[in-house]
Amino acid sequence: MQTPQKIAIVGSGLVGTLLAIYLKKLGHTVHVYDRSPDIRKINFSGRSINLVMSNRGWRALEKIGLVDEIKQIGIPVDKRAIHLPHEPLNYQYYGKEGEAIFSLSRGNLNKKMVDLAEQAGVVFYFNHKVWDVTLNTATLHEGEEERGVWNELKYDKIFGADGAFSRVRHRMQRQSMFNYSQEFIPLGYKELHIPANADGTHKLDKNSLHIWPRRNFMLMALANPDGTFTCTLFMPHQGENSFETLQDKSKLVDFFAEYFPDTKEVLPNLIEDFYRNPTSYLVTMKCYPWAFEDKVALIGDAAHAIVPFYGHGMNAGFEDITILMEKIEQYGDDWHTIFKEYQLERKPNADAIAELSYRNFMEMSAKTADAKFLLQKKIEKWFSEKHPEKWVPLYSRVTFSHQPYSEALAIGDFQNQIMEQIMQMPDIENKWNSEEVETKILNLLQKD
Amino acid sequence: MQTPQKIAIVGSGLVGTLLAIYLKKLGHTVHVYDRSPDIRKINFSGRSINLVMSNRGWRALEKIGLVDEIKQIGIPVDKRAIHLPHEPLNYQYYGKEGEAIFSLSRGNLNKKMVDLAEQAGVVFYFNHKVWDVTLNTATLHEGEEERGVWNELKYDKIFGADGAFSRVRHRMQRQSMFNYSQEFIPLGYKELHIPANADGTHKLDKNSLHIWPRRNFMLMALANPDGTFTCTLFMPHQGENSFETLQDKSKLVDFFAEYFPDTKEVLPNLIEDFYRNPTSYLVTMKCYPWAFEDKVALIGDAAHAIVPFYGHGMNAGFEDITILMEKIEQYGDDWHTIFKEYQLERKPNADAIAELSYRNFMEMSAKTADAKFLLQKKIEKWFSEKHPEKWVPLYSRVTFSHQPYSEALAIGDFQNQIMEQIMQMPDIENKWNSEEVETKILNLLQKD
Repeated sequence: MQTPQKIAIVGSGLVGTLLAIYLKKLGHTVHVYDRSPDIRKINFSGRSINLVMSNRGWRALEKIGLVDEIKQIGIPVDKRAIHLPHEPLNYQYYGKEGEAIFSLSRGNLNKKMVDLAEQAGVVFYFNHKVWDVTLNTATLHEGEEERGVWNELKYDKIFGADGAFSRVRHRMQRQSMFNYSQEFIPLGYKELHIPANADGTHKLDKNSLHIWPRRNFMLMALANPDGTFTCTLFMPHQGENSFETLQDKSKLVDFFAEYFPDTKEVLPNLIEDFYRNPTSYLVTMKCYPWAFEDKVALIGDAAHAIVPFYGHGMNAGFEDITILMEKIEQYGDDWHTIFKEYQLERKPNADAIAELSYRNFMEMSAKTADAKFLLQKKIEKWFSEKHPEKWVPLYSRVTFSHQPYSEALAIGDFQNQIMEQIMQMPDIENKWNSEEVETKILNLLQKD
Repeated sequence: MQTPQKIAIVGSGLVGTLLAIYLKKLGHTVHVYDRSPDIRKINFSGRSINLVMSNRGWRALEKIGLVDEIKQIGIPVDKRAIHLPHEPLNYQYYGKEGEAIFSLSRGNLNKKMVDLAEQAGVVFYFNHKVWDVTLNTATLHEGEEERGVWNELKYDKIFGADGAFSRVRHRMQRQSMFNYSQEFIPLGYKELHIPANADGTHKLDKNSLHIWPRRNFMLMALANPDGTFTCTLFMPHQGENSFETLQDKSKLVDFFAEYFPDTKEVLPNLIEDFYRNPTSYLVTMKCYPWAFEDKVALIGDAAHAIVPFYGHGMNAGFEDITILMEKIEQYGDDWHTIFKEYQLERKPNADAIAELSYRNFMEMSAKTADAKFLLQKKIEKWFSEKHPEKWVPLYSRVTFSHQPYSEALAIGDFQNQIMEQIMQMPDIENKWNSEEVETKILNLLQKD
């Protein structure tokens, strides 16, 4: 067991609250600060993509017995449903039978987590704005205004779980030898809303992640338990087919009629939603180191913000907690080593999921509509079922396993090189499940 | 001519003062703010690498007639002098006869530039600390302390010439769609000092850049007009042969005796210098955009901080000014377009010199001691003299021309591919200046 510490967590988001529960259960005093009001008391909507929980996230919840409670507010999603104009729906299963990710509304999940943390004895300070941190004394500087009077709050340890624009990291960034990058991609996103049917049922298959892939833009939808879907339009900020070009209503309506004809009935409030909800930005943020001595550590988006196309922002953040707890178990009161080993293990994996997430926009927005890509997936699935010990597809490694992201990425790249050669075989369309293809893959695998 | 503007420049370094002179000559009101005291009134030393002025820098000075004044305080350097243990000096000329870079002490040059700016009518506010900027109103927030009382200073335009850790950029960085990265390299540096002989002459050849290349670390020295040399030790912060391992005096003395035996007489104050002068960090900083509307623009290190191994930090900053002035001449009072075109033209070139600078550490610290590399340089020089219109070596493109850095980098990479093939020719050591080699290079060039 560890000697009890007085710990502050900045940020009451998903990672901050889950970390708080873990640390409280270890016997520490845990205070969580957030500049926003209590999420349970406000109307949370308008700029969130639905979350998908996969195995990495579940593992973190499992250890403290929260899986059942959270599953109750989620919906299993076992496939993509691809919407092409004037074509029947095409379903693409994510994994083996029984493998699914879970759609969760960020607001609902976060409310639940704050409840659970409070029940565990964590103390929340909402509407408390942390502006700065003194790293070597683990002191928070908190106050109403950035240029106003601040209170000094002294702790033993501070965790920065305050997201992509972390104030805690902001202070660390001004140290020598702190590497940092923020890179915005040219795409933005906007939340739209598919209401429930009058009888409370869903207007689309609720167990699918719906995608309308249109190459450089796409629409997607994920179900909520109340019969609604949270819908997200991803498109460039500027240029052809961009947010910039949809500034008047008639253009918006024409655009949806042309590219998303089958959404006419399911998006009755399109115009209202579109102009009321903000257009949000997408950024990849990387930094290192994540810890200052044994005093301060970053976790979740504050350490590694990624684009949402693999649905792994929360899963990666929860996995940070799993690894941190492993290090705590291993090193006890030696917080120096705990923080050092935590960041060493997590950094390459955070970089890998950043890369995978960035690449996955092209997979979702273009490849899911590409016959050649679908054939490749079919071959991988067929071979994987014949040789499950020899071939686990990349998506399954990332989503349904706990293999480090960096290994999944490396193996995925190797598999992709093999599949490029397979796809070049003459007449592959007709002999895709032949012994010849099987033998060739087996041979190529041995060259590893 | 432009309509006179009230312009603030943050930073009285080399780029800030030269920009001030240019803008003042265009008829604007120019105020320069600096958090430090007037450099003319302090003892400036201890953490600076000598500057080398090359053609890009001279061009910016030439337009306002400052070349002669600055040449008086510099020393021409036309070659590298390579010091290997127990071997004679090896001289490597930089360019053609008469081509040289100029060694200048940062302190002396900066003092001179402030004098010249003041004479031109620029007003300096030293010891004035700018903490923040309101971008859309071009307002500086200045005061004694970050958390104290601030004055608001309203301008028409603000230039951030406040270096790698720019406060102006710091505000821009907190905007959406602002890309930013800072990456420290594992090497640090420390200034050392070679005094003059009793008669005021130099202890080493003053017209050489002296290098002691030792692969993962190196020592270099550049002459000053007073008979001294400013010497810089570059080495890793940690690991074998690092600053970390030289924490006691006997280790330091042994280290220099082993690796730099010929410095024993020229570095009489080694121990004192080494432990008094700080170990400094080296960072590459990139960002984009460089301008906010027609109000605020970044220039020099504030826009693109690079490592010092090509000696182009100042030259690149001065070239920013040259290009900015071209845009001013072209677009007059349309500052929106001036800033937009300035950043569009400069950004790829800033990225290119960052890459070239990073790569040049390996050239200086390892390749200058490598026989194969020296042969390659000899072949390039020989071919270039035979076909000056077909082959300008990379170093000359970067240092003795005004070709955009991005073009120089691309052509340099192409030339290097050719040279790799040439170096693989059997018996190249003996036939390096043969017709066969000449013909092969000519053929490879045509494949472009």
